Amino acid sequence: MIVNGRHYRTVWMESAGQHGAVVRMINQPLIPHRFEIVDLPDHQATARAIKTMVVRGAGAIGATAGFGMAQVTLEAPSADWRGYLERGAATLQATRPTAQNLFYAVRRVLKVALAAETSAEAQEAAVGEAQAIADEDAAWCEAIGRRGAGLISNLAGKREAAEASDSLAHGVRVLTHCNAGWLAFVDWGSALAPVYAAHRAGIDVFVWVDETRPRSQGARLTAWELRGEQVPHAIIADNAAGHLMQRGEVDMVIVGADRIAANGDVANKIGTYEKALCAQAHGVPFYVAAPTSTIDMECASGDLIPIEERDEDEVLYAYGRTDDGEFTRVRLAPEEARAHNPAFDVTPHSLIAAFIMQKGVVAPDRLKELF
Amino acid sequence: MIVNGRHYRTVWMESAGQHGAVVRMINQPLIPHRFEIVDLPDHQATARAIKTMVVRGAGAIGATAGFGMAQVTLEAPSADWRGYLERGAATLQATRPTAQNLFYAVRRVLKVALAAETSAEAQEAAVGEAQAIADEDAAWCEAIGRRGAGLISNLAGKREAAEASDSLAHGVRVLTHCNAGWLAFVDWGSALAPVYAAHRAGIDVFVWVDETRPRSQGARLTAWELRGEQVPHAIIADNAAGHLMQRGEVDMVIVGADRIAANGDVANKIGTYEKALCAQAHGVPFYVAAPTSTIDMECASGDLIPIEERDEDEVLYAYGRTDDGEFTRVRLAPEEARAHNPAFDVTPHSLIAAFIMQKGVVAPDRLKELF
Repeated sequence: MIVNGRHYRTVWMESAGQHGAVVRMINQPLIPHRFEIVDLPDHQATARAIKTMVVRGAGAIGATAGFGMAQVTLEAPSADWRGYLERGAATLQATRPTAQNLFYAVRRVLKVALAAETSAEAQEAAVGEAQAIADEDAAWCEAIGRRGAGLISNLAGKREAAEASDSLAHGVRVLTHCNAGWLAFVDWGSALAPVYAAHRAGIDVFVWVDETRPRSQGARLTAWELRGEQVPHAIIADNAAGHLMQRGEVDMVIVGADRIAANGDVANKIGTYEKALCAQAHGVPFYVAAPTSTIDMECASGDLIPIEERDEDEVLYAYGRTDDGEFTRVRLAPEEARAHNPAFDVTPHSLIAAFIMQKGVVAPDRLKELF
Repeated sequence: MIVNGRHYRTVWMESAGQHGAVVRMINQPLIPHRFEIVDLPDHQATARAIKTMVVRGAGAIGATAGFGMAQVTLEAPSADWRGYLERGAATLQATRPTAQNLFYAVRRVLKVALAAETSAEAQEAAVGEAQAIADEDAAWCEAIGRRGAGLISNLAGKREAAEASDSLAHGVRVLTHCNAGWLAFVDWGSALAPVYAAHRAGIDVFVWVDETRPRSQGARLTAWELRGEQVPHAIIADNAAGHLMQRGEVDMVIVGADRIAANGDVANKIGTYEKALCAQAHGVPFYVAAPTSTIDMECASGDLIPIEERDEDEVLYAYGRTDDGEFTRVRLAPEEARAHNPAFDVTPHSLIAAFIMQKGVVAPDRLKELF
């Protein structure tokens, strides 16, 4: 997508000659207040960037992990290069437990590298495969956008016919949670790709942006992306989604996914499940947009997906910019207070109208047909 | 309740001799980081304190408005004192549109004052009535605590029998939203009174504290109160309540109410409705604790309750203390971003197991029998 007039991907890799390759990415914790590119010179730095959430989001983590695995291969000593690859893969996989695309990308690059005869062949294969993962991610998200825009377009007709003069927003009103935009992927995004495609096609679309505590990815990242694409939107407290649906102010919900079980259960950012329950209570269709690489066919159902517990400080503090322009955190809670901070929850497939995937819009019980 | 070894009410009034009376209250925006008492010398200052949320919470707003109305009566000029009373009542009522206790208290003091023959008699009657409202609030909340503790006690037996060794917390696990503790009333609170009464009676009770964005009353006020009473608790992002219920970590929900319609629909802090939907989905009993003064028998159903829209900055910023001890706000969202900020939502009576009131624990369809 475009930032300050220039096209950027969220993460990419550049050759550093004899010294392997450098992974470059947008420094996401600084968004929306500053736009900055971070250079990661080796796979350890890349693993750290995933763990500390310099990069986050299903597809972006996957592409980064793929590039990290390419770095591992480029760094590997000629002696015991296969052992080095296995250890590097373990390092990358230990960063975030819930993200399916992480495991998908690491395994995929590792597989082609280990299939090579020599370490030089492994390097060439790994770099090619990592680049292919990133390119596929971008292409798949673009396809998700086209397919999802069709759903929005269908609602636009109904909405024009029924539009109440006293509704808070014009056009098709999409509610989204967290950031499954282009910052969460290599380009375009999953949940926001349909919005971008519809908006570029001239369809009147409005986005309710859940702020998404504790890390505020909605208020920070989704709002920043939507502004860049000039899509009308308003941020709301996560608590307000049910109220807006009750008042008839939401036409559809589109969220992303961190992992999709074989039965269609979805692990996504904490709070997704609450929004799905609200949507069901009000007959608002609830869509999950994701590339098929997010599906974990080896995971039978959502209760088997490990849920990452993150540091309680994410809940006890908020992070942002003061009126003086300084970046800082502020403590909300009493000094001795403790918090509990599950980062994801599981939405059962029964609450999901359909998945918007690069191969098509499919009901949860038809996911298996995509393979 | 006790602060630093001394008993405090949230708000009270002291005579200022010839100069009327001063309303004194805990400065709630500074909690939990600083404990400070604010003096309000006249009814205009008192109205401003309600509007700017120096005091907030159903019962505390009611008691403050009652004292404010007493100030109006004490300030009234001998000529046209009745007109001054009517104008003062209008000023106080224009501060917060949703809070039933505000209207209840202003009307009650106004009625006894206007019934007086002389302005001196009106002053004596108004001061007495305002004090009676505050005293009743404290007594009613104490009764709510006793009745609600019975419900917690009933669950404690079941919980001991069934306690899973891998659950996150011990005892009866109560989830609450916002702050309906003693800071929201004159003393004890409504939703937290049962917790305090149960804890003091030796029942093992644990509280999940919704942080309650955008103003973080849970993380700031409820956590501070619970620490004072040494009740075990953990703060969670509002988004995590559904996940915890799904995992069997919540035994009951108790919330307060800003206004209760005649049919049992409840207006309360934004997000209450989402928690009620989650509770229903998981068979977790959902209780609303409030004194009968919160019932508006003239309001037939929840859709008729006006919902206050507050400043978008509450959503775009978070307010707290930096590591250097400075109080400040930090901006979460991009500079140009807009937010929508409804302060309350309506939970339909069908989602409410029962009301915990000073007169008893009653189902929504039996509310009318209390009058």
